[in-house]
Amino acid sequence: MQGQGMSLSAAEKLRVVRALDALGVAFIEAGFPASNPKEAELFALLAEVELETAVICAFGMTRRRGLDAAADPGLATLVASAAPVCTLVGKTWGLHIEKVTRVSREENLAMISDSVSFCRAHDKRVIYDAEHFFDAYREHPGYALECLGAAVSAGAENVTLCDTNGSSLPQQVATATADAVAALGDGAVVGIHTHNDAECGVANSLAGVEAGARLVQGTLNGRGERCGNANLVSVLPALQLKLGYSCVAPERLGLLTETSHLFDELTNITPDADQPYVGRNAFAHKGGMHVAGIQADSRTFEHVDPAQVGNGREVLISELAGRGSIAQRARELGVDLGPAGAARAVEQIKQREHRGYHYEVADASFELLLRREAGQYKPLFRLESFRVIVEKRADGQVETEATIKIWVGGRRFVRTAEGSGPVNALDRALREAIGELHPELARIELADYKVRILDSHQGTGSVTRVLLDTSDGQASWGSIGVSENIIEASWEALVDSLEYAFQPRTAAVRNE
Amino acid sequence: MQGQGMSLSAAEKLRVVRALDALGVAFIEAGFPASNPKEAELFALLAEVELETAVICAFGMTRRRGLDAAADPGLATLVASAAPVCTLVGKTWGLHIEKVTRVSREENLAMISDSVSFCRAHDKRVIYDAEHFFDAYREHPGYALECLGAAVSAGAENVTLCDTNGSSLPQQVATATADAVAALGDGAVVGIHTHNDAECGVANSLAGVEAGARLVQGTLNGRGERCGNANLVSVLPALQLKLGYSCVAPERLGLLTETSHLFDELTNITPDADQPYVGRNAFAHKGGMHVAGIQADSRTFEHVDPAQVGNGREVLISELAGRGSIAQRARELGVDLGPAGAARAVEQIKQREHRGYHYEVADASFELLLRREAGQYKPLFRLESFRVIVEKRADGQVETEATIKIWVGGRRFVRTAEGSGPVNALDRALREAIGELHPELARIELADYKVRILDSHQGTGSVTRVLLDTSDGQASWGSIGVSENIIEASWEALVDSLEYAFQPRTAAVRNE
Repeated sequence: MQGQGMSLSAAEKLRVVRALDALGVAFIEAGFPASNPKEAELFALLAEVELETAVICAFGMTRRRGLDAAADPGLATLVASAAPVCTLVGKTWGLHIEKVTRVSREENLAMISDSVSFCRAHDKRVIYDAEHFFDAYREHPGYALECLGAAVSAGAENVTLCDTNGSSLPQQVATATADAVAALGDGAVVGIHTHNDAECGVANSLAGVEAGARLVQGTLNGRGERCGNANLVSVLPALQLKLGYSCVAPERLGLLTETSHLFDELTNITPDADQPYVGRNAFAHKGGMHVAGIQADSRTFEHVDPAQVGNGREVLISELAGRGSIAQRARELGVDLGPAGAARAVEQIKQREHRGYHYEVADASFELLLRREAGQYKPLFRLESFRVIVEKRADGQVETEATIKIWVGGRRFVRTAEGSGPVNALDRALREAIGELHPELARIELADYKVRILDSHQGTGSVTRVLLDTSDGQASWGSIGVSENIIEASWEALVDSLEYAFQPRTAAVRNE
Repeated sequence: MQGQGMSLSAAEKLRVVRALDALGVAFIEAGFPASNPKEAELFALLAEVELETAVICAFGMTRRRGLDAAADPGLATLVASAAPVCTLVGKTWGLHIEKVTRVSREENLAMISDSVSFCRAHDKRVIYDAEHFFDAYREHPGYALECLGAAVSAGAENVTLCDTNGSSLPQQVATATADAVAALGDGAVVGIHTHNDAECGVANSLAGVEAGARLVQGTLNGRGERCGNANLVSVLPALQLKLGYSCVAPERLGLLTETSHLFDELTNITPDADQPYVGRNAFAHKGGMHVAGIQADSRTFEHVDPAQVGNGREVLISELAGRGSIAQRARELGVDLGPAGAARAVEQIKQREHRGYHYEVADASFELLLRREAGQYKPLFRLESFRVIVEKRADGQVETEATIKIWVGGRRFVRTAEGSGPVNALDRALREAIGELHPELARIELADYKVRILDSHQGTGSVTRVLLDTSDGQASWGSIGVSENIIEASWEALVDSLEYAFQPRTAAVRNE
């Protein structure tokens, strides 16, 4: 979350935690348990969650200089959290000890040792993150290794070598890691934590593992401060498919593409089409020779089988869009498409995805699309027209109102509402009009509203995609709208979100 | 140019050629001299250009099977071009020879040998690109090396080992390259050509050089098919600043950031803010400790000196920003805050960041904030009022118009404009009103428009943050607006983006 402009709520972070757990990672470092109320809320939520493969780590620093570990408020917060593992970061580099923390080398060793011991005494497992290890090793290998030794002697089960400034190249990582692994012997597992400042984040992680490291710390899609961290989405398939390590179950590796995209969607970043393994172009083939080669033997032009990482060979056709899988999805939803309906639905989806729709996160709009093709769609109302006015007056006041004219069950409703913004005003006006006949609408609330500008190089003239999350207090569903006009895109998603709730369906399917 | 959706005119390619030459590269591969009229035009233009450091290569393939080299139309075009160097690509991998070209191993060797000889006989220097070399070497090292030998015996001065499918990892590249270098001895220079499918394109190039390769083939910003090629913008500084190779003169390396951005601008790709060495975030520092460390010794938090690659140090403005760094930023911008002004600015920033502003990516809004506190702010106009109407009619048509009433230099302007959406309409109306007095406005374009909903769990009632990127064709700047109302947030960012361009400042600061 240290990448520029990244922000997730505690509930969204919980979705990421579940996705990482499904992918099969060993540890999830969830931040400092109380750096702000949002983090505290996250750790409270995490205490209630049951995970299949992952263990939660709380992140903190070694104690302050000249302070008893027991008196350090940061360490107290750390051991008070429900997380079974503490990741402690501390110094190893003379330059930092001298110019940043300004303590003696002995005091730095004591800071490491005391902090690890304190966490161990509170029954925490400890991972020691050796900050700037590779810079430190290049200047004074002896002292750098001494810092690792202090952590292990005090009870750390793992020391992770961090290339904090991203300065190192793979050969340097290989040499230093091999030396650390040899120095620690069976005392502790060695981990590797690299950054991408030299565009070697992934290669450095692999070099660390080849030299004996057995834990890789990285991030989804390599997001992180400056140029990012080691990209786990590329490290994982290289370890498993190219170097023969068994990191996660093969079927979990098949979730890689989906997990990568989910994270970008949540953080409102456009997924990189050229991203290795999971990008839309990663297995895109041009020209007849490539296609013929692939048909003869996929190894001619593909370095791994795209299915192993949950990606596909074809461009612009989403995972949903095969006719077979559409028909199957429809059956699961209780929608009877038939072969012709399935073909039409596939065609619709292709066309719409080309225009910027994206059904992976919009289950409600997807179901409505299937229902329309199956003739099982029931409109909630018929729109005659709407009008939204936003006015900023001379005194600086902004006023927003929406007027809506609709037909419901043969009756015409004209309603006007004010709102905090244009979409809020439209939502209120629509609810006033429909709410008279459908009082149960009051239960349904918009939970989340996301806007993305597609092809944003064209400034304010580009296409807008709106994603809505809606909830009735029990289930929740997503809808989508796409238009050049943000108001119309929002309207489309709004209508889908309400109509979805009123479709006739069996209770079993409804709460699935 | 094989990246998806990339397209440049011959004249634009010539700008890239000049920029690469200024950067100091040794060879520029300009494509096949006649694959289409645009390529033919480019080679005609190139024949007239005098370059300082670079030599132009024409790219082609070995002769077709069963054909005399002299009868091959592709080779004829190649030797007819004015380029002094021919890059010939040919097969080395049994799998391809068997399943794609379907020739015998002997015929493949003859295709290499004949084609190189033919180009040499026409006084061309020859680089032989050994396609799929690393896959080939892993299966049959003997035959792969035999192919290289055939090229060298026929007169190729350089054989470049290509990881065409991007399948290899650095250790594999190191081993195979060392073997090829040993096998060829003094017969030819070895080159390395890698792709980024395993996110190791840069590391693989470096591994090749460390194993003895002396030519790196790559692209600006790593653009290329699928996941891209080796990124020269990262390979070059690593070779020169980290591994001690002398590739280009130091002052030429200082053009790296500018060259990287120029290429993205020409191909209409938003430069990646997180790009190693040249990205806006590559040397961005958050928080007081980092800033203090940098001031004590830049090596504490920076892997190279940003000035060496033509980048700058960006100190991020955030809740953590102290009064000292605000004052320093102001001085850099030529804004005279004074101690009281600095205190007021810090207070403003804190309050605004609490409400959702985020100045890290909005340098223009940040400067305007400082200017207001320093009394060095010049408004572009005074708003009387605006009104935006979005109407969806009974026939499904959507109409959007904005009316704006402003005062500029004592004159009142009332203008109405239609747009593809509400913000587009507002932008147009504002430009019509101001453009009469400020025709230079036409140069300024909105380059990117981003919307984020903060605390988005409250549905459409939540706070909207709009980020705009604006460009005058040379420099670009970011502005921000925050409001419950998306229209007002957009308006705020829009006004900042234009006012920033018109603030009185010295040329030195402006183009810094």
